[in-house]
Amino acid sequence: MQVGRFGEFRLIDQLARSLSRAGQPRSGASLTSPAPGAENDLIIGIGDDTAVWRGSPLLTIATTDAMVENVHYRPETATWYELGWKAMASNLSDVASMGGTPRYALVALALRPEVEVAQVTEMYAGMEEIAGRFGTQVVGGDIVSSPTACMVSVTVLGQSVSFDDSILLRRSGARVGDQIAVTGTLGGSGAGLAMLLEGKQFDAATTEALRRAHAQPVPRVPEGRALVERGVRAAMDVSDGLVGDLAKVCVASGVGARLHLVAVPVDPMVRSAFPDRWLDMALYGGEDYELLFTAPPEIMGRALQALEVAGLTPATVIGEIVEEPVGKVLLVDEQGRAGVAEKGGWDHFAG
Amino acid sequence: MQVGRFGEFRLIDQLARSLSRAGQPRSGASLTSPAPGAENDLIIGIGDDTAVWRGSPLLTIATTDAMVENVHYRPETATWYELGWKAMASNLSDVASMGGTPRYALVALALRPEVEVAQVTEMYAGMEEIAGRFGTQVVGGDIVSSPTACMVSVTVLGQSVSFDDSILLRRSGARVGDQIAVTGTLGGSGAGLAMLLEGKQFDAATTEALRRAHAQPVPRVPEGRALVERGVRAAMDVSDGLVGDLAKVCVASGVGARLHLVAVPVDPMVRSAFPDRWLDMALYGGEDYELLFTAPPEIMGRALQALEVAGLTPATVIGEIVEEPVGKVLLVDEQGRAGVAEKGGWDHFAG
Repeated sequence: MQVGRFGEFRLIDQLARSLSRAGQPRSGASLTSPAPGAENDLIIGIGDDTAVWRGSPLLTIATTDAMVENVHYRPETATWYELGWKAMASNLSDVASMGGTPRYALVALALRPEVEVAQVTEMYAGMEEIAGRFGTQVVGGDIVSSPTACMVSVTVLGQSVSFDDSILLRRSGARVGDQIAVTGTLGGSGAGLAMLLEGKQFDAATTEALRRAHAQPVPRVPEGRALVERGVRAAMDVSDGLVGDLAKVCVASGVGARLHLVAVPVDPMVRSAFPDRWLDMALYGGEDYELLFTAPPEIMGRALQALEVAGLTPATVIGEIVEEPVGKVLLVDEQGRAGVAEKGGWDHFAG
Repeated sequence: MQVGRFGEFRLIDQLARSLSRAGQPRSGASLTSPAPGAENDLIIGIGDDTAVWRGSPLLTIATTDAMVENVHYRPETATWYELGWKAMASNLSDVASMGGTPRYALVALALRPEVEVAQVTEMYAGMEEIAGRFGTQVVGGDIVSSPTACMVSVTVLGQSVSFDDSILLRRSGARVGDQIAVTGTLGGSGAGLAMLLEGKQFDAATTEALRRAHAQPVPRVPEGRALVERGVRAAMDVSDGLVGDLAKVCVASGVGARLHLVAVPVDPMVRSAFPDRWLDMALYGGEDYELLFTAPPEIMGRALQALEVAGLTPATVIGEIVEEPVGKVLLVDEQGRAGVAEKGGWDHFAG
């Protein structure tokens, strides 16, 4: 049945019932150990005027991200499950990039009346799957009608690891002499998007891996926490593209960056699928949701080791923070030649 | 300049600068006394991956509401300032209807590329004006492009007055024998909307008052707090219409309600402007953002007196909670004849 016929209030009732079931702690379903008392903190979920939970005197971390149909995703290339997953994952990633633990999510949904109720249920399943892996519950939201394009706006609330407000991963925390590193590999999301938009065919494993890299990114929540606990103080997540996002760290910190192209970690699958474009995808593609962070060499060494020992996503050193040019990224090639990066990241309006 | 040419990142920068100025505590600008330490709790506002503030061990109250162009507002009848005001006010009202204190807001904004930067600035001014009156700060958000229709999604976080989770205004808190009351007057918003849509002309004072009732509702934040502090435990805000919203309280509480039509408070201006429709506007119009609450007679007496003594918006008793029919509202006329209300409130899809 279409949501326009089903009605807003019935749809909210149905989702509330399925979410309150899903909100039960599932043993073993969480990749991270929940904060003490996490299971018992929710007082009111969906169904009243607001959600209510027991507060924490730790720092509250709050973020919101919106995705619009045919701007941030296309119905032809993304399933509803993938849409829900990604809308949630991008917010979880923001909390991860501060070194925090996500806890609660609110979802505002604008739906075309002809959307099927089953599609909305699928979307929530995608949201819950990735949220649940990190101990995060959908506790409230709003569903409204939108005549021409759907929109999903997710807000995630989390908490810090410490009461101390210096123990955060800030964009402004990069210092001259820091090494720059990134978790995982880059370019997979851009490659997946290109594959989908251009209708490219690869072997089944590559097709599946590239699609997942684009549509179901896994936010680096335990990695962010491990980094902040080991003394790292500067990070952001790679959402708009490595070069553009690194430039934002430089602007916020009043420093420059040298990025060694040969060091940028790119999945071999992306290189072989797009032999002419893999570097552009890694530098400018965006939406990889890896953590980009900086730290003095000694702390960096400990942090990289901590990721490895804990069996988390490993990270690679890709450059260093320098005094100049302030707010800019120098791309350094294998011969040591450096040039200022020209292309920016993805701008939602200019793009 | 249009936002499509100006660019997303420049727009966020500009708003961040104007909001960080506006975020300074303005003496006398707040209608409510801020919570202890309110001015110093914000650690990171707009400009990093997330907002960060010092947590509170009180209960956290969280709500999100979305407004879509040509569904919830029309560019012909609402200024950008009014749109911002109302999008923020509806969320503040949800926090008020739990008896909480709003503190922080996040704003997700989807804009058509041809929207003017000055219009966005106006919208934020409207948001800040009403948020600032209640000590609430806009601390983060997201701005994205939307090709066909604008959308504003606001999330507001607040806190309870007590650590005790029984000291809240819940929809499920109504008990048989409770009196039912509502703050202020009803129908003003519906009358304002009818005036705007039908191009009706009244004297300047009426026109202005009806427009404000529709476009710039004032959420009952100090009233909600006064009620919960005086022992009231059941409330919601009138957003979809008195009868429909009262029915939701009845469903959540497993009770019925008798509503005395003659007691429903309606502004005389609404009666004289719409002599044939004022009662429908008061019963079904919605968006008045008054507080609808129930309490045993003794507590109700104290609560009404407390509102009066504090110089807050007064409230009127309009009915009582009964055993049957469960989940339904009986409308009682002057002769004591009762009928089950037939029309529901506003459903965003069905409407």
